[in-house]
Amino acid sequence: MLFHVAITVRIPHDVTPERIKQLSSREHERAAELQRQGNWLHLWRVVGKFANISIFEVETPAELHEILESLPLHPYMEVEVTALCRHPGSLAEVD
Amino acid sequence: MLFHVAITVRIPHDVTPERIKQLSSREHERAAELQRQGNWLHLWRVVGKFANISIFEVETPAELHEILESLPLHPYMEVEVTALCRHPGSLAEVD
Amino acid sequence: MLFHVAITVRIPHDVTPERIKQLSSREHERAAELQRQGNWLHLWRVVGKFANISIFEVETPAELHEILESLPLHPYMEVEVTALCRHPGSLAEVD
Amino acid sequence: MLFHVAITVRIPHDVTPERIKQLSSREHERAAELQRQGNWLHLWRVVGKFANISIFEVETPAELHEILESLPLHPYMEVEVTALCRHPGSLAEVD
Amino acid sequence: MLFHVAITVRIPHDVTPERIKQLSSREHERAAELQRQGNWLHLWRVVGKFANISIFEVETPAELHEILESLPLHPYMEVEVTALCRHPGSLAEVD
Amino acid sequence: MLFHVAITVRIPHDVTPERIKQLSSREHERAAELQRQGNWLHLWRVVGKFANISIFEVETPAELHEILESLPLHPYMEVEVTALCRHPGSLAEVD
Amino acid sequence: MLFHVAITVRIPHDVTPERIKQLSSREHERAAELQRQGNWLHLWRVVGKFANISIFEVETPAELHEILESLPLHPYMEVEVTALCRHPGSLAEVD
Amino acid sequence: MLFHVAITVRIPHDVTPERIKQLSSREHERAAELQRQGNWLHLWRVVGKFANISIFEVETPAELHEILESLPLHPYMEVEVTALCRHPGSLAEVD
Amino acid sequence: MLFHVAITVRIPHDVTPERIKQLSSREHERAAELQRQGNWLHLWRVVGKFANISIFEVETPAELHEILESLPLHPYMEVEVTALCRHPGSLAEVD
Amino acid sequence: MLFHVAITVRIPHDVTPERIKQLSSREHERAAELQRQGNWLHLWRVVGKFANISIFEVETPAELHEILESLPLHPYMEVEVTALCRHPGSLAEVD
Repeated sequence: MLFHVAITVRIPHDVTPERIKQLSSREHERAAELQRQGNWLHLWRVVGKFANISIFEVETPAELHEILESLPLHPYMEVEVTALCRHPGSLAEVD
Repeated sequence: MLFHVAITVRIPHDVTPERIKQLSSREHERAAELQRQGNWLHLWRVVGKFANISIFEVETPAELHEILESLPLHPYMEVEVTALCRHPGSLAEVD
Repeated sequence: MLFHVAITVRIPHDVTPERIKQLSSREHERAAELQRQGNWLHLWRVVGKFANISIFEVETPAELHEILESLPLHPYMEVEVTALCRHPGSLAEVD
Repeated sequence: MLFHVAITVRIPHDVTPERIKQLSSREHERAAELQRQGNWLHLWRVVGKFANISIFEVETPAELHEILESLPLHPYMEVEVTALCRHPGSLAEVD
Repeated sequence: MLFHVAITVRIPHDVTPERIKQLSSREHERAAELQRQGNWLHLWRVVGKFANISIFEVETPAELHEILESLPLHPYMEVEVTALCRHPGSLAEVD
Repeated sequence: MLFHVAITVRIPHDVTPERIKQLSSREHERAAELQRQGNWLHLWRVVGKFANISIFEVETPAELHEILESLPLHPYMEVEVTALCRHPGSLAEVD
Repeated sequence: MLFHVAITVRIPHDVTPERIKQLSSREHERAAELQRQGNWLHLWRVVGKFANISIFEVETPAELHEILESLPLHPYMEVEVTALCRHPGSLAEVD
Repeated sequence: MLFHVAITVRIPHDVTPERIKQLSSREHERAAELQRQGNWLHLWRVVGKFANISIFEVETPAELHEILESLPLHPYMEVEVTALCRHPGSLAEVD
Repeated sequence: MLFHVAITVRIPHDVTPERIKQLSSREHERAAELQRQGNWLHLWRVVGKFANISIFEVETPAELHEILESLPLHPYMEVEVTALCRHPGSLAEVD
Repeated sequence: MLFHVAITVRIPHDVTPERIKQLSSREHERAAELQRQGNWLHLWRVVGKFANISIFEVETPAELHEILESLPLHPYMEVEVTALCRHPGSLAEVD
């Protein structure tokens, strides 16, 4: 099943640049892993913001929760999850 | 370029069911056409709402505006457009 | 899987009382059916409002969408869907 | 009587991981106790967030307030309480 | 138990003045009845608005819901209910 | 004249528990004094929150401002003041 | 005592221009009367909107409510009242 | 002086297409006139909406109000005005 | 020209009382100066808040910006500026 | 293509004045460079706020994102991007 996930990252200004760099690097590794597994279908940057919009494909809502909690930047993320389903007007064979 | 478009449809309750049916049918035709042209990349229904989330690929913002204005249900749509760009963590070859 | 669904009903004031009565009666029948099927696990009235809070159990998000669209009062409903999952602190054997 | 309680936990980022672990562990113990007593009827995690949705059964609003204040993570919680009552369409023998 | 109830009345402009007068008159009668019964403890007008703030005393949340639904202007009311309890700093013998 | 005052207390998490205890104790003393003087007519706790709803009776708006500024927890309070007047449907001899 | 009053006028589009003209003319007469009486101290138009910001001087909040209710356009007004008091930094002999 | 003006047009759905066409045509004429006079410096369409963002240059706030009120679609416009001034970092000789 | 300025002061709780006292004292001096110059026409305290509502008279929007930036408490202020103009119903000879 | 960018700067109060001065100076240099390159078409200060409204011209949304991320004050900016297109009523030869 598909979920639309809007993530805004808000890192407190007294976290050191080293720490941010380290977390971002681990975040990219984890994101790559989830994309290769087929869970993280789409990942786009929102222009002008430290924010992204993603589409996740998971077996259950619980799996999505585990995935989001496993992200290294998760403690600094504001996450909005929206459940999606097939649109009657969509021509896509798979969503 | 890619745009995230969130559309909520609010049809006033005194529009006749025939009119809604007619507009919805024309909306599906136009949506199919735009998907086949490659402009309407993704189209998902938001669960529980008369709303959808879409990704459009267009040459210019003006093209997106023309496309959205050409939708038969457009007079009843609330539209939120968000400009997207490639995310540094995305593995996709094309977005 | 479980979804939290908050529904507010807003009936335009020029809908006739007969029509409201008819729709409400059909709404109760459909709600009873969905409760007996095990899809509508919990249904509570919000005190002071024409609104309710419900827990639905469905196989897929798409099933939830179909159920909500099948409600006779659906055209007058504002619906907010929230995906739930098991809480690590919950003692419930089933949620 | 029943209350719907939506809780979002916001732990300031300079609270140490040890302190969070300690509070979370005590929170789970207290939650278990309240579930066994029959006050905390339902407890679900909101997908993607450090937030939960619960149904409490109490004798009085004051009892609910005491219960919520007794939670170890309470100082970091944003709490929204909604009074519920039986829905005329509900088939449940007990809510 | 006590509930704080904030009511805003929004009468659509095409309701006739006769109808409004009739409903307002019946509203005052019902309000008087509920005050004499001891359910409607306090009733104040919000300055500048067609709105009031009230304190209700009821046996159960369900009783409050029935009372609010029994108000003749109820179809045009926006109602916000807040559960109250005794404040530790209050000197009142009864609230 | 009467004012409805909604107060939410937000104490920053790095204020020490001793300081909070001290301020709360002084707050209760001052609240008792103002209740005995007849300025603080009603004081209720909002269930689940560090918040209260109060009715103040004062000679002038300026007197209300002085009273609110004199509260020991005032630096941590979010205060919303609403001017009240007699409701035409109220049976109360005094409000 | 002084109150800041922000008024936005929203006239439904099916009120006839004659009716609006008539109400506006009566509104100006009433506003002039209240200014001459010394109740309506200041009256400014908000640029670009059918809205104004005013300062009223009245004996009691109830007097302000009566004044606002007496305005011919009152049924179409959204009114926000804010209680004011003397600012310690103000040099004005009278406010 | 410069003002940023954000305009959203909301035409009620029972205004006839002929009327909308007529008003839009007159709106374009008036907009052209104001651009030629040098009052309407910039005019952009917001993608996906019946909305625009403009920069006006006027002698006084009152002149801006008169200009906005003179627009044929003004009765259906939501207008937000923001006062601008020269930015210390701007290289423009004229703004 | 006239501007309505709504200012809320939010001083972080770890600024020392001495610093606040010093800034407030300098704020009052600067406010007095601006009132004597005729720029700060009206200054009122909002009851219950560390906030004020003011009317400024300036030659240009830029002059208003400079004035607001010159206030000693400016770094802690949230400022909302609204452009005003003469109301057709105002009897004031000068606004 | 054109984008409307609204930027609010919020510098935490414990950043030193030296640091702010340094960042602001580098911000002005970068802004000058982007204006000379023709990317930053318009830049206005919002009166009364540490905020600006700008129009950017870029080849792609990604270019806009890179530009905004390159601003020295970017970590303290709240950025809202709105895609613009030519307005049918605009007389401008170039926007």
